[in-house]
Formats: sequence, C-alpha cells, structure tokens
Amino acid sequence: MARRATDRPHTRRDLPAWPTDGLSYGGDYNPEQWSPDVWREDVRLMQEAGVNIVTLGVFSWGLLEPREGEYDWAWFDEIIGLLHDAGIAVDLATPTAAPPSWLLHAHPEVLPVDAHGEREAPGGRLGWCASSPVFREHALRITTALAERYGDHPAVRLWHVSNELGGGNGRCWCDVSAARFREWLRAQYGTVEAINAAWGTAFWGHTFADIEHIEPPRGDKHKANPGLFLAFERFSSDELLEHYLAEAEVLRRHSAVPVTTNFMVGSGGHVVDYSDWAGHVDVVANDHYTIVDDPVREQDLAFAADRMRGLTRAREPWLLMEHSTGAPSWQQRNRAKAPGEILRNALAHVARGSDGAMFFQWRASTAGTEQFHSAMLPHAGTESRVWREVVALGSALRRLRGIAGAPVEPAKVALLVDEESAWALQQGLKPHRALRYARETRLWHRVFWQRQVLVDVLPVDADLDGYDLVVLPTLLVVSDAQAARVDAFVRAGGTVLATYLSGIVDETSRVRGGGYPGAFRNLLGVTTEEFRPLQADESVLLSDGGRVTDWSEDTNLRGAEAVVTYADGDSAGRAAVTRNAVGDGAAWYVSAQLPLDSATRVADRLIDELGLPRAVEAGTGIEAVRRNTPDGDVLFLINHSDADETVAVSGRSLLDDDATFDGTALVPAGRVVVLRESAAE
Amino acid sequence: MARRATDRPHTRRDLPAWPTDGLSYGGDYNPEQWSPDVWREDVRLMQEAGVNIVTLGVFSWGLLEPREGEYDWAWFDEIIGLLHDAGIAVDLATPTAAPPSWLLHAHPEVLPVDAHGEREAPGGRLGWCASSPVFREHALRITTALAERYGDHPAVRLWHVSNELGGGNGRCWCDVSAARFREWLRAQYGTVEAINAAWGTAFWGHTFADIEHIEPPRGDKHKANPGLFLAFERFSSDELLEHYLAEAEVLRRHSAVPVTTNFMVGSGGHVVDYSDWAGHVDVVANDHYTIVDDPVREQDLAFAADRMRGLTRAREPWLLMEHSTGAPSWQQRNRAKAPGEILRNALAHVARGSDGAMFFQWRASTAGTEQFHSAMLPHAGTESRVWREVVALGSALRRLRGIAGAPVEPAKVALLVDEESAWALQQGLKPHRALRYARETRLWHRVFWQRQVLVDVLPVDADLDGYDLVVLPTLLVVSDAQAARVDAFVRAGGTVLATYLSGIVDETSRVRGGGYPGAFRNLLGVTTEEFRPLQADESVLLSDGGRVTDWSEDTNLRGAEAVVTYADGDSAGRAAVTRNAVGDGAAWYVSAQLPLDSATRVADRLIDELGLPRAVEAGTGIEAVRRNTPDGDVLFLINHSDADETVAVSGRSLLDDDATFDGTALVPAGRVVVLRESAAE
Amino acid sequence: MARRATDRPHTRRDLPAWPTDGLSYGGDYNPEQWSPDVWREDVRLMQEAGVNIVTLGVFSWGLLEPREGEYDWAWFDEIIGLLHDAGIAVDLATPTAAPPSWLLHAHPEVLPVDAHGEREAPGGRLGWCASSPVFREHALRITTALAERYGDHPAVRLWHVSNELGGGNGRCWCDVSAARFREWLRAQYGTVEAINAAWGTAFWGHTFADIEHIEPPRGDKHKANPGLFLAFERFSSDELLEHYLAEAEVLRRHSAVPVTTNFMVGSGGHVVDYSDWAGHVDVVANDHYTIVDDPVREQDLAFAADRMRGLTRAREPWLLMEHSTGAPSWQQRNRAKAPGEILRNALAHVARGSDGAMFFQWRASTAGTEQFHSAMLPHAGTESRVWREVVALGSALRRLRGIAGAPVEPAKVALLVDEESAWALQQGLKPHRALRYARETRLWHRVFWQRQVLVDVLPVDADLDGYDLVVLPTLLVVSDAQAARVDAFVRAGGTVLATYLSGIVDETSRVRGGGYPGAFRNLLGVTTEEFRPLQADESVLLSDGGRVTDWSEDTNLRGAEAVVTYADGDSAGRAAVTRNAVGDGAAWYVSAQLPLDSATRVADRLIDELGLPRAVEAGTGIEAVRRNTPDGDVLFLINHSDADETVAVSGRSLLDDDATFDGTALVPAGRVVVLRESAAE
Repeated sequence: MARRATDRPHTRRDLPAWPTDGLSYGGDYNPEQWSPDVWREDVRLMQEAGVNIVTLGVFSWGLLEPREGEYDWAWFDEIIGLLHDAGIAVDLATPTAAPPSWLLHAHPEVLPVDAHGEREAPGGRLGWCASSPVFREHALRITTALAERYGDHPAVRLWHVSNELGGGNGRCWCDVSAARFREWLRAQYGTVEAINAAWGTAFWGHTFADIEHIEPPRGDKHKANPGLFLAFERFSSDELLEHYLAEAEVLRRHSAVPVTTNFMVGSGGHVVDYSDWAGHVDVVANDHYTIVDDPVREQDLAFAADRMRGLTRAREPWLLMEHSTGAPSWQQRNRAKAPGEILRNALAHVARGSDGAMFFQWRASTAGTEQFHSAMLPHAGTESRVWREVVALGSALRRLRGIAGAPVEPAKVALLVDEESAWALQQGLKPHRALRYARETRLWHRVFWQRQVLVDVLPVDADLDGYDLVVLPTLLVVSDAQAARVDAFVRAGGTVLATYLSGIVDETSRVRGGGYPGAFRNLLGVTTEEFRPLQADESVLLSDGGRVTDWSEDTNLRGAEAVVTYADGDSAGRAAVTRNAVGDGAAWYVSAQLPLDSATRVADRLIDELGLPRAVEAGTGIEAVRRNTPDGDVLFLINHSDADETVAVSGRSLLDDDATFDGTALVPAGRVVVLRESAAE
Repeated sequence: MARRATDRPHTRRDLPAWPTDGLSYGGDYNPEQWSPDVWREDVRLMQEAGVNIVTLGVFSWGLLEPREGEYDWAWFDEIIGLLHDAGIAVDLATPTAAPPSWLLHAHPEVLPVDAHGEREAPGGRLGWCASSPVFREHALRITTALAERYGDHPAVRLWHVSNELGGGNGRCWCDVSAARFREWLRAQYGTVEAINAAWGTAFWGHTFADIEHIEPPRGDKHKANPGLFLAFERFSSDELLEHYLAEAEVLRRHSAVPVTTNFMVGSGGHVVDYSDWAGHVDVVANDHYTIVDDPVREQDLAFAADRMRGLTRAREPWLLMEHSTGAPSWQQRNRAKAPGEILRNALAHVARGSDGAMFFQWRASTAGTEQFHSAMLPHAGTESRVWREVVALGSALRRLRGIAGAPVEPAKVALLVDEESAWALQQGLKPHRALRYARETRLWHRVFWQRQVLVDVLPVDADLDGYDLVVLPTLLVVSDAQAARVDAFVRAGGTVLATYLSGIVDETSRVRGGGYPGAFRNLLGVTTEEFRPLQADESVLLSDGGRVTDWSEDTNLRGAEAVVTYADGDSAGRAAVTRNAVGDGAAWYVSAQLPLDSATRVADRLIDELGLPRAVEAGTGIEAVRRNTPDGDVLFLINHSDADETVAVSGRSLLDDDATFDGTALVPAGRVVVLRESAAE
Repeated sequence: MARRATDRPHTRRDLPAWPTDGLSYGGDYNPEQWSPDVWREDVRLMQEAGVNIVTLGVFSWGLLEPREGEYDWAWFDEIIGLLHDAGIAVDLATPTAAPPSWLLHAHPEVLPVDAHGEREAPGGRLGWCASSPVFREHALRITTALAERYGDHPAVRLWHVSNELGGGNGRCWCDVSAARFREWLRAQYGTVEAINAAWGTAFWGHTFADIEHIEPPRGDKHKANPGLFLAFERFSSDELLEHYLAEAEVLRRHSAVPVTTNFMVGSGGHVVDYSDWAGHVDVVANDHYTIVDDPVREQDLAFAADRMRGLTRAREPWLLMEHSTGAPSWQQRNRAKAPGEILRNALAHVARGSDGAMFFQWRASTAGTEQFHSAMLPHAGTESRVWREVVALGSALRRLRGIAGAPVEPAKVALLVDEESAWALQQGLKPHRALRYARETRLWHRVFWQRQVLVDVLPVDADLDGYDLVVLPTLLVVSDAQAARVDAFVRAGGTVLATYLSGIVDETSRVRGGGYPGAFRNLLGVTTEEFRPLQADESVLLSDGGRVTDWSEDTNLRGAEAVVTYADGDSAGRAAVTRNAVGDGAAWYVSAQLPLDSATRVADRLIDELGLPRAVEAGTGIEAVRRNTPDGDVLFLINHSDADETVAVSGRSLLDDDATFDGTALVPAGRVVVLRESAAE
C-alpha cells in the first residue's frame, strides 16, 4: 500500500482565540422554526441562562437559498444581529447537512445508495453522497455565499462545517462512489497486482484482472475479502474528509475565524477515522449522547471525553458541541435524565478538557422528526426542573471560567484506540461475530476510571512518551511500525497490557503468520495456538475466581509468567493473563474476555506496581479529575452513586455554595463538588 | 389543512332488509376449488348445519373472465341456482381481490410497491395499487358485468365489494401513488406554504419549495416528518375508499341490494380509517380472528365487537362476516380452538350486536396458500368435533333468531379510539418506540369487561350524550374541536379518564405548545413537565402497590388531586393517577402505563362512584351482555374460566336445553347460557 | 405431473479404482495463496502427516485463464508435478466455483438474483445462475481445457466438479431462470390446465391462463401456492444438476478418472435433492461441518454419515471430502475442537462408511474471507496440538487401511428422509411455522444411536428389504407409490413408525382428502381430526411422564391401540403414541413432538420387541459401529462422554497402542478404540 490518508499534511491552524470569553455555553439554535417574537424571547432567556454562544444555520439552506442561486439573507441578518446585540457569539454552520428540496428533486442522484442498491429517500439528514460532484458544486456555492456575507461579521466566532458528517451518509455504494473508490485504490496501491498481493485475493479465486473489476463490498457484510472491506472503510472516511476540506478551504479563504465540525466520538468504532480528521479542524469538537440503557452511562461519557482529549494529543481544550438536557428521541426508550444529571454530565466533560458545554438544542421543536428531543428550553417551558438546572449550569460555568484553557492533569496511562480495528472486527467472517470493540475498550478504561486514575484515550499512532502504562484493548489491526513503537516503549521501561486479538492482522487485515498474537507475540512472551470462542451459554472459571465469557485461548508460555490461569474447560491450566518482564519494562497479555472483577484485580496490581496516581482515593462511584490552572489545581469530584461520600481534600469550592474544605469534603449522592485545591491545614 | 376525507358526505343507504331471515349463518364458499358433485354435497351439508347465507365469488375473477372481456357465467349460474333452490342467500362478491393472471402479466405496473421500492410479486391477494387507473378500469368492467347479470337475482341479498380491502395493498409507494398523493395534498392544503407551516418542515431543513418535491415517506419508517407520515396514512385510506366507492357506485346503479365490504377491525390501529369508511357501507361487516398467543383472546374479541357496534354509533346490528372454527394458518403456531370455543366466540359476537356469525370458509381447501386454514367442514369431514360444533351453532342461532334487529343494551361507558393516534404512535421518532396503542385500549376495556360493564368503543368524533364515563386511552392526536367536545362533556357533568400521551399532538402530528398533556392539561388540572419512559428491565412502584412498566411522567398538580403516586424512582412523590373535579364532572389522568391490578382499582372506583351498571355481578371470567328485544331482554352469559359459576338471574334458556332459571343460573366452565329474562320469583 | 427429474437415467459409472491406496487422507490445497518455497514445505509436511490425496484447483480459474481464452498452465503443472513426485494423488477440481473477475465484469448478468430482485454482488463463491447460458459456455470451456491437459495425468485420480454446488447459487429468481422454469414446467406438466389442477390454483384466484404467466415464487416466502413453491425447489435442484452433468460429460469424454462433486449432507433439508444427484457421481462425497452450538454435535455427524451411506444404498464406501480440524469461521461463535475431537470425528465418519477423511483445508489462509478457518496446518504451524493430532490421525488411518472397501455391518433400522418434505415444511403457510424437519429426524436417529443400534438413513424411494424397522419422521410429502411401498413393507411383517405430519400432502404439496394422517391413516389405524400446535410457552403432559412441546393432535383410534396418551390439555385422554398390529407387522404413530425421554422409551420398546441388534451394550455416550472386512469385523468404539467406560469386547487394537482386549475394553473418556474382533477367550 502506497500511502494512507493519515499521511495527508494537516490543515489545522493554530488559532489563539477561543470563540467565547471563558467557557462556552449554549446550543444549536434553529430560529427558522419560530416566529420573530419568539426570537426575542429566546435571546432574553439565553441571557437569563448565561448562554454565550449558539450554533446557527445548520438546517437553513432551503431558506437561505430558496431557489437555485437566489438568496434570502434578511431574516438571517436579523437573527445574527439580535444575537450579536445580546453578546452571544455565533458558531455559524454551513447548511450543507440539509440539501434543499429543489436540489434533491432536480438531482436525486446525489442521494446515497446502500449496500443493497437502494437509494435513500429524501427526508432525512445528510442525504448526499460524499463523492457526488453535483452535490459538491452546490454545497460550495452556498458555502461561498455564506462566507462572503458573514466571514467578517463580529458575531461569527466559529465556523461549523455541515453537521455530524457521516451521520447518514457515512458510506455510499452508488456507481459514482464505486468509480471514485477505484481512483482511490489506484492512488493507494498503484497496480492491481499490488492489490491482489496485499489482500490475498487468491482465496476463493477473487484475483482481480484489472482495478476496473473492483466494486465496493456490496450485499452481505460478511462475505467480501477483509482487505476490500477495510479499504472501503478508509476510502469512505477519506471521501467525507475531502468534502469537509473543500468547504473548510472556502471558509478559510474568506474568513479568519476558526473552522470546526462536530465529531461523534464515543466508545466504539466510528463512521470515519477521527484520528485522521482531528488534524484538519482548528478546534476539536464533539457531540455526545448517553445511551439510555447503558448501566454505566457516566463512564461511557468519561471515555468519550478522554478520547476527545486524546485527539488533541492531550495538549489543548476541546469543545463539547452537543449533548442533551434529557431524553433524546432516536433511541428505543428515550430516558429522561435524573435530577442533577445535567450538571454531572456537563461538568464531567469540562473536567476532562472541554472548555464548554453545549446542547442540542436551545428550544424544543414541536414539529419534525425530533419533535420529542429534549432541549435547554423544554416543551414545558421555564416552569420545569430542566430549565432550572440549565440556569444553574450556566451559573456554574460562569464561576468556573478561570479554568478556560487550562490543561487536564497529565495522565500516566494511555489506552490506544483504533477505528480500523473496530471496523475490521465487525466485518467479514471472524472467529466470534458478536465481539464488540467497545466492550473491551470500555472495560479497560472503567477499571481505572473507578479508581480515579486518569487515562488518555489515544489514537494508535500517538506519542507514548511520559506514560507508565499503555493499554491495547483488542488492537486487531497493527502495522509493523506501530508494533515496533509499542515494543520500544516497553524496552524503554514502560508497561504494556494487550488483550486478546491484538496484533492479529496487518494493515490490510491479513493474518500475521507465525502464530498469535501476531505482531506482539515476541514482546508478550506468550503464543496462542488456537482461539477458543465460547458459546452464548458457556463460561470458563479462572484461577482468580472470575468467570470468562465469549473468548478464551489456548496459550503457551514463551518466557512470560502466568498471572491468572483457566481453571476448567478445554484450556484448563493454560494462562489467561500473563506478564513478561522485558528489561525494565513489562508486557502483559490478557487472552480472555475478562469479567469486571478479574479486570479490576489486574488494574489494581498495575496501579500498585507502577504507582499510578489516583486523583483522590475514593469509592468506585466517585469520578475525580484535575485541571491545572496557573492559579493552582482545580479538582472535580462527581458522585455518581446513591450514597454521600467523604473525600480527603482541601480547598475552596468554585460553585455557588462557596464552601471551604479543610482536609475532607462531603460529596453528596448525585452531586458535584469543584474546588480550587490548597494544602490541608 | 382544508378538509379531511371524513368530511365527505356519507353514501350509506338505510335499507330495511337484512340479507337473511333471522340471524345470518354461513361462510365464504369457493366452489371453483371443487367438482360439481361436491357442490351438491356442500348444499346438502349446509342445510344440515343450518347455513342460510354464503359469500360467493371472492376469488372467481379469472374463471368468470378467463380472457380480457370474455366471460364464462355458466358455472356461476349453476352454483347460484343450487344455492337459491336450497334457500341459501348469496352475499355476492366483486372478485377484485384476485386480479387474473392475464391482467398482472399484461400490466405488472398495477402491483403495489413497498417503501423500499420493491414491487410486489404476483401470487398473493389484493395485488394492486389503489391509485392505478389501469386496475380501476378492469375492476369496474368485471363489477359492471357481474352487477348487470346478477343485480336482480333473487338469491343475491348482499353485495360484498372485493375482500378485506387494504389487506395486502394498504399502502403503495409507487410513482403513480406518489403523484396521486400530491394531488391529494393539494386538495387538502392548497399551497406548499400551508404544508410547510402545518408540518413544521423547517426542522432538519425539509422546507418544500414546491408540492411537486414531496414524495411519500419511503425507506426508514422513523425518519420522515410526522406530518408527512400522517398525511400519507390518511391519503392511503382515502385512496382505498375511492376504489370501494367506485365499485359500490356501479353496484348501486344496477341493483337495489345492500352493499358492504368486510372490515378487519381489532384492538389496535387499522390499515384504513374505518370510522370514515363506516358511513359508506349499507351494512357494517367485520372479519375477526383471535390471535393465538393472546392470553385473553376472548376480550380482544369483545373489544372488536364493541368497536364494530361503535362504528354504527351503537344504533344498529352489524355482521360478523368472517371468523374461524379453529386454527388459522397465517400465524406462527396456529392454535386450534378448544372444545366449546366455537360457540363461545360466535355468541360473544352476537351478544355484542352482530346479527349473524359467518366463517372463512365453508369447506377446507386442500390446495393453495391457506390449505391448512380451518373451516366449517374440516379436512376430517363430518366425523369431527368441529363439524358437530358447527351443526350445534347453527341450531343455537336458529333458536336465537328472535333477537335479530334487537339493539344491545345502552352502555354508560364510552372508550374513544382513533386510527390516527394509532398511526402516529408507530411512526417517526417517539419517546418510547415500543409502546403499542392496542395495549392501552385493551387494558381500559378489559377492566370493565371483567366486571360485566358494557363499553361502547367509539370513533373519536362520536356523540357522547348519554354516557357517564368516557375513556381516552393514549389519544395522541387530538384536534381543538375534539378537545372542546371532551371538555364540554365534563363540564356538563360527565367523567373523563385520559391516559398518558393523550392530547399531545394536533391533527398534523405537531406537539402542542405550553406543556403536556397538551389539549387536555387545563381540563385535567395537571401538567407533565417531562416524560420518563422506562427501560425494558425497569419498573416503578406505585403507592397502591402496583408496578408501572414502560411509561411514567413527572407530573405537577394544577388543581387536581393525586389518587395514586409514584413511590420510588426519579418521579417519587409525584402523581401517577389524578382526579380533577370540574363542576359536576370529573377529569382523571393516568400518567403511567398501569398494570392490570392498578387499572382495575381505578375502574372499580369509577364503577362505584358513577354507579356504572353491571350486566350481572360475577367473577372476572364471566362475560355478560344483554340485547333488548321487544319481547324482553335476552342475556348472554359466557363462562371463559375453568370453573363453573352461579349467577343471580331468572328466565328461560333460549338454547337447546330449554332450562329455566329461578333466581340463579349455573354457567358451567367453558359454556354459554342465553336466557330470556324474567323477574325472579 | 408428467415426470420427475429423479426419473432421469443415472449417469454414474461403476469404476473399480478408489483414488488412493487404502484410506484417503488429505484436504483442499490452494497453493496459489503461497509462494513456491512454501509449496515445497507443504509437500514435505504432507508426507510427514501421511497425506495421500489433495483437492486442487477449486479456486484457480482466474489464474489458469487470466484473460478470456488465454491460459497459464506452468504453475499448475509444477504443483501437480511436485505432488505426483511425492506420491500424493490429485483430486482435480474444475474451477467453476470461482468465476474470474473479467467474466463477472463483462457479464454481470450471470450473478444470481434473490427473491427480492437484488442481484448478488461479486465477491462470494458460486456467484452464477445455473440457468445462465453465458456462464455455461465459459464454464465448459475451462473444463474442457483442464480435461484436455490433465485428463491422463497419472497424479489425477479423481475429478471434483466445481465445489459445493448450490452453496451460494442454490436458487436464482432472475428472468433467465424464470424462463427456464417455465420450460421445465412445460416438460413436467405439459399444459397449464394440468398445472392449475395439480396445484389447486383456484384458491385465492391464482388460476393461470397461460404457462407464460407463471413466475418463480418471488417475495414473501410464505405467500405463494405450495405447489409452485415445491416445483421451484425441484426445478432449482434440476438446474444445478444440469450444470454438474454438463461439466461431468466433458470430463468423462476426456478422461477415465472417476468424477464426483462434494455434497453438503447434514440432518435437515438440503439445497438440492441429493437422493437424485447420487446416481450421477462415480464416488459419493460429502462436506460435513459440525454446528458449534449443537449440544450433540457427534450425533449430527453420525446422522450425516449414515445418510451418506444411505445415498449409496448402504452398498459401498463414500468419501468425506471436507471436514475441519477445528473452528470454522462462517458460524457465529466458531468453536475450536476439544483435544481428541479431531480423531473422534474423523473415525466416526470412517466407521460409518467413509473410506477416508479429508479436510478444508491443508494450510490455513492468512487472507480472504475464510482467513480464520481452521486447517490441517494451522496459523500456529507445527508447534500445535492441531498439527500433532493431524499427524496422529494420519498414522491411525494408515493402520486402518485394511478396512478400505469393507462394508459397514448391515443395519436393521432404516430412517427415511426426503428433501421435498423438508422443503415443503418450510414454505408457505403451515400449521406451525417454527417446526424444523431436522429436529424430528435427529430425534429418531438419536434414540437408536445412543443405544449403539445402527440406522441407515435412506432416501424415501430406497429398497426396504432386509430392514426390521422403518422410521418416517415427519414425512410430509408422500406419493401414492411411496405410501404403497410402506404399506407393503408392514404387511410383509415389517414395523413402521411414522411421526406427526407424515403423509399429509401429495407430491404437489396438496393436502390429502379424507382426514389425517393422509396417506398412512389406514395403515396406522388412527385418524387425527385436528392438529393442536402448541404455543412457545405451552407443553402437554403425557401418560408416560414426558412433556410434549410444539405439536399435539386430536387423534381417534381406528383399530390401533394407545401406547402413550395425552394427560392434560385439550387433547387429554387421546392417544399420543399408537401401535397398530397389521398381519405380522406393526405400524406405530407418534402424533406429538416427543421429548427425548419419551422417544427413548418408544425406541427401547422397539429394540426389545424386534430384537434390534446393538453393536455393543454400553452407555449413551458410547458410539459403536462395525465394518465387516474379509479378515473379520472391525469395531469402532468412540467415547463421547467425560467418563471412562468399559465395554464387553475382545480383539486386538488396530491403533498405535497395539493393545489386546480379552473380554473387556476400557474406552477412556474422549478416546477412540478400534479393534479387530475375536471371540472372547
């Protein structure tokens, strides 16, 4: 393979100005759904809540350009003026997430086509194929018009390219995309012979006689060659990035304001490779929604925030562009938030590096697909718990404004995540089709999170200097270079913990010869001769008393020592968890899908052996993170449990209560304490 | 919105003659599946069973018109003659449910297209798009030919337009339908601006620049604008009605015989809006099949029958056109009926207003899709329990002939149902996607049914005069006018009970501003500031000891009193059930999905407070209903339980046993008692 | 119906030479995935393992014919030469399972189309429609070229036509197939009137005016006429057979080497009717994979092997062409085999008549769809349990070479299976849609297998002479001739056991009139007046203490005696199992889906009454089968349980241990004993 898109030079600009003074607070604002008298009420209530920024224009294309090439700016001028007069900054969106009806009617061919050949119907969001030259032309015209008109407007403090790119158009299997895919393959591989060699197409007789014979992997998502699957994922990420870059280029040509787009970063694999995209946005921004039936929603949130910080290489603030005050509407049973959860959620993001907390959306819609989505101003209006908590959050953020720009304390643990591993795990025939990448990443983040040990969730190519422990949960796809970096880290005294299926395939999704765990087997001092996936009703007892489900392996020690062994089943007596001393470092291997209790024991031993710093020492329900300001550290303590807890800290509360803590602080159940720390008396 | 189809003038004719003397008994008869010698045996056995009417010709088109424009009447003449000679009336069907193979071969474009663009294959039923001008032309030609030939035949006592219209072709997303949909929108709304305003298309940037840009909601059933969804449902009902009316007009032009079509009325939402259709049939007729894994099948049956009566505004008899003697074949595990269940089921329909009991079908087919569907004459022939029970039912119906035309006793409870609420609940993104309309309608019918309190299940626009209690289960879609009628009912001294999600959206499926429960919040004296849908494994304890699943709300009292409160969870202390005194009336609100025990307690209090009449006082397994004949009341007692029960009644049995009851009647387990009542000695 | 494809004259040739000396051992070999240096290592390791045959060329088309009409034989010559030099026979495949990319690119119309009109994407296996004249032409050209070049090569000992025909292209609903289907219908039925009569198309008005109006059953798999469904299944089997025969004819023209293709025989219905195909292969060969979540995988294997033997009418050896050393990759959670399972599985096939044990594949692929499929030489290489067991198996097979050609001992029990019954049970509306044919066939095989009673699993038209018991599990589709043969068997003194739904429909899937169980009701002396399918949460107690799920019936004795009765439910008191004495014979009927314990009791009574021979008397975990060699009997004892077991036998071990057994043999848990028997001292 000649080159990866990640080799593309970054276009990110280091721009000093954050869009707001202090922390950013606000949400998506869609005034076109309301009458002008409501606009005035909105601005008044925004001020009451302390809103200092709103995202504008996301879905306004059809109203700004009601007919091709004809623009109506008047209403938009008025809105922007109202906001500017009220001191509210505008995060101005290019409206390309919402192609107007006249465009889709005239050019239905811009709508994406799914893997079964069905063209998407109009009526959703992002109903366009990223490879469509027709759409690109129209999108850049409205972007240009918008940039020309508002590029220098003092209210506009941030550009928001389209919206959740890929959320609806992440993949397109149309013939235009297929042709672009072949161009992409030519650029990446050069020749059909190189593709055949890389993908091992001889299997099942899939050797391509010509690149023109290659089609995207249509139909069954398990049938195609794994190399083809992975290439199409990369291509699709690249195509969307091309679109983003094309819009960003227009904006940057007309405006000095920073450019961003809202990512959708969570715990699993994503629609695009954000580790690649992060180098092209001036501010890294995220939309995060908790999953209503996730029993540890707060840890998923922490994971996502730690991953966002990781996308900045833990060097700078990022921005929470969307989250929710309550129930979404796109899930099955859209749970409302519990009292206090709004503050807990928002400040957990801030604690972990977001310099703001924004919502979808300002005012709850009464019509349209998301008419039941929660908002800052709910259907019930201001006489509601949600509104009171929104006002309180605004107040809290104002009081915390001093932390703007302050870095989160340096972490000593890095957890490496990789979109390509997530993609590869879900496609093609795998030993176990129900494994989920996020299950393993979440587990190994959780065992440290519950101990108040900060983890940087990093892209796989991030710099590992300064970390004591690097965790590789199911890092399935690994290049030689990546493997070498991990190896060097250990040989320099670091500790690595890799879990099952790590290192198994190379960057073309090809199994590494010579035995498992492939790229890491020498480092780990252990080999696996055979995988032993478990059936849905099976489990295996471990020597530490835990019970393994889903995955086990027939391991052989090749220098490592067994830490935990399988206690029954066909692998009885073999090692489930191993440790290999390598110079001053150590390489751990976890060959099983561990239960929480066993993983906790492993983490506790690592915390102990490596002296990993805990922000505070508290129970598993306490989340604790520090940000380092020039004026001293600010400690966030969030109690997710049902019981009050006392934590050993000293300092002064930054929130409304103005409390001081002298040695201990009570963190009531469900509450948040933020304090500027001082030494205990 | 300019007008609804329901505003269309009714075409129903008040025709005095019921198709049979006394109660109607028979079924679908498909003689083309059998040889002429079997026809003669059929007629003989029909007479043995007491059959006095059969439905003929439903699937005969291809045999009556074997080639376009060429007719073969001879065999049909013979059949009709045989039946007429035996004194068996004919319910003559236009055969348009079964387009002939030559038509589908020549015009595959008449086949319906699904939401994903797949055109239906030939080989089912009703394989035609209701908007197809090609199909319409052919359908009216055979209808005309049939009406001309048999319009005055003395055997023909009822016209049966097509069959289960919508059962297979309820929706069509083809381009012909799409164009007709736009015409319909133009007629309903006038301008695109009116549509944009009504549907709130600004959300997600869906503003239509032209009505020509509007397409039916294809693809994902959750994505489109709720207003578009609801409009397409209404349009589809209207298109099918247009087809029915076109056929009916032909029949009425050529014949004075009443015209009907068989509805498919059950507990939930239907494929068309039968409350609209009912005004266009001369006799209201229904097909009802119990759902084999429904643990309370008999109450579903009672609900459907009460709803059929409601479609006549409780004023006149209706006709059970199809039910089954045993297992259907279109369900997963097609349960046979238990011994005695045929009589229980048939007489339950009759008790609730059907002047007959008909079946699909007379003789069990040996071939074709439904070769395993039960029939009056089963595969096993006359040496079978089913046949013996069929003969016994015929005898029972003859003995009950005196109730023909008699009204069911007036109910004091009305339960309002609404197709549009059912449609709206299942489409688009909702707070809880697994809620089922029928769950709530069934619950609130059941708590009265088990107390022998008669409930009229009425269309939402029915006259409420004369009722003491009106129940609104999840009446999601409510117009201002409908809300005003409910309000007036209470202010005039009536009692209303509304359950969660009632009144939330207006007639374009738009959330009513100002807080929940929208249209009814002033009447109910309670507001909900936030919905709290529950996850699949969650429940909430109530103050009355019940356990709520699926749905709860954060309510605030605004004049109402709390009757039941939430006892744990995030809504603890808030009201789950409220009562608001309004003048002489009262308005109850149920904010939770109540379990049966809690709902029963609410119903029992209402029965007590309002003095709602029970037909008899008996256990929950006894179904009891009266019909009022000129010669006195006839009481039906049906024991659905496994235990005999004694009921306090007096009178003389109308069934074969000729028993008299003097103060008490024993209703054996699984048996039916029908008596003409007299005062106890 | 004029004729069935099964009436086609067999093309099988009785060729004396088995492809290898002694038992065949090897697997699929795909050298094009590896470099020439690996080829040499392969041959060396094959010799180490005792491999004497490999299947070559399955996926080589695109490399042998890289452009249309241009061939590259050099690499293939080299491989064949290397193998020949090493004394390894070649089972040479026509490469038509893998059409080259240039063919699919130039002729996408050869790709199959599914029932919903979606054309399959390139990238799988067997991506071609069996009715495509374009594909046929290309396939026969490469077959001819291959046959001309290697037809006389001394290494080539077997021809392997394509691969798993139907595994991917078993059905095609394209228009070319549809036209061929109509031709097939014309050949089978002659006239449209004959079709209408046979299928009973009058139901739902499906009478065809012309054969040209008939389409394959597209769309919903439950909607179409059952006769149409069954005809399309037969047609599809015939079309694939036509393709096989066309290739075989080319090979036979150019080569005297036997021709086979690999079947995929298991416990249920198959993609084609192998009972028809078996007459057209010179050696009957099978691919068998255990299903990882089957709790009795070893009995499924025994069933498949007994069925393969049955396809030879139990007269001759067959060949296990593929099985696996460990996990497949096409299942959900691909279980590895337990230590010892490789030997148990391979020798179970051999015990039951396979003269060899071959695998997919020789060396584990690192790329392609099945990159995680197990192999003889796993990813871990020779330092692995799998490799050691492969070497041990090779050694065992060499030691067992004396049994080559020896028949399996004659069975006294025949179990009749029928593809058409399996097809008919799964299509169209059935009384119970979740019944699975394999559930019942497996049950009645298992009750004898666990008693070491050999069962021949036979096609329904097999000769029944010599059997004492014939079992008919759910033999739904029965012709009059087949029924008469069963009848004659019983009247001649045989015993038959038929289970529910047997004999219900005729060969056009039409219900037999006159009552259930249709074709067999006179023989069985019992009638069923009504089926009573049970709901998922229902069961019925039997008089023998067992609990019936899924299926019960309302039976009436008509001469038979009740052996077991229903003890509760609506059928209480009726017979669940009956026995009808008929002359010297007996006819048993099982009207219920029996649980294992009840079925075991029935089988034990039959074993006892009929004196059915057990190979040995041992616990249910011991599998025992004899092959009769000219030098005496060879007994295979396989212990599938977790406990050692002692069996009463005498003889000398044929495996490496060289043990002798004098009256008893210890069969350790999980181990296999094979001995040449002698009389006990």
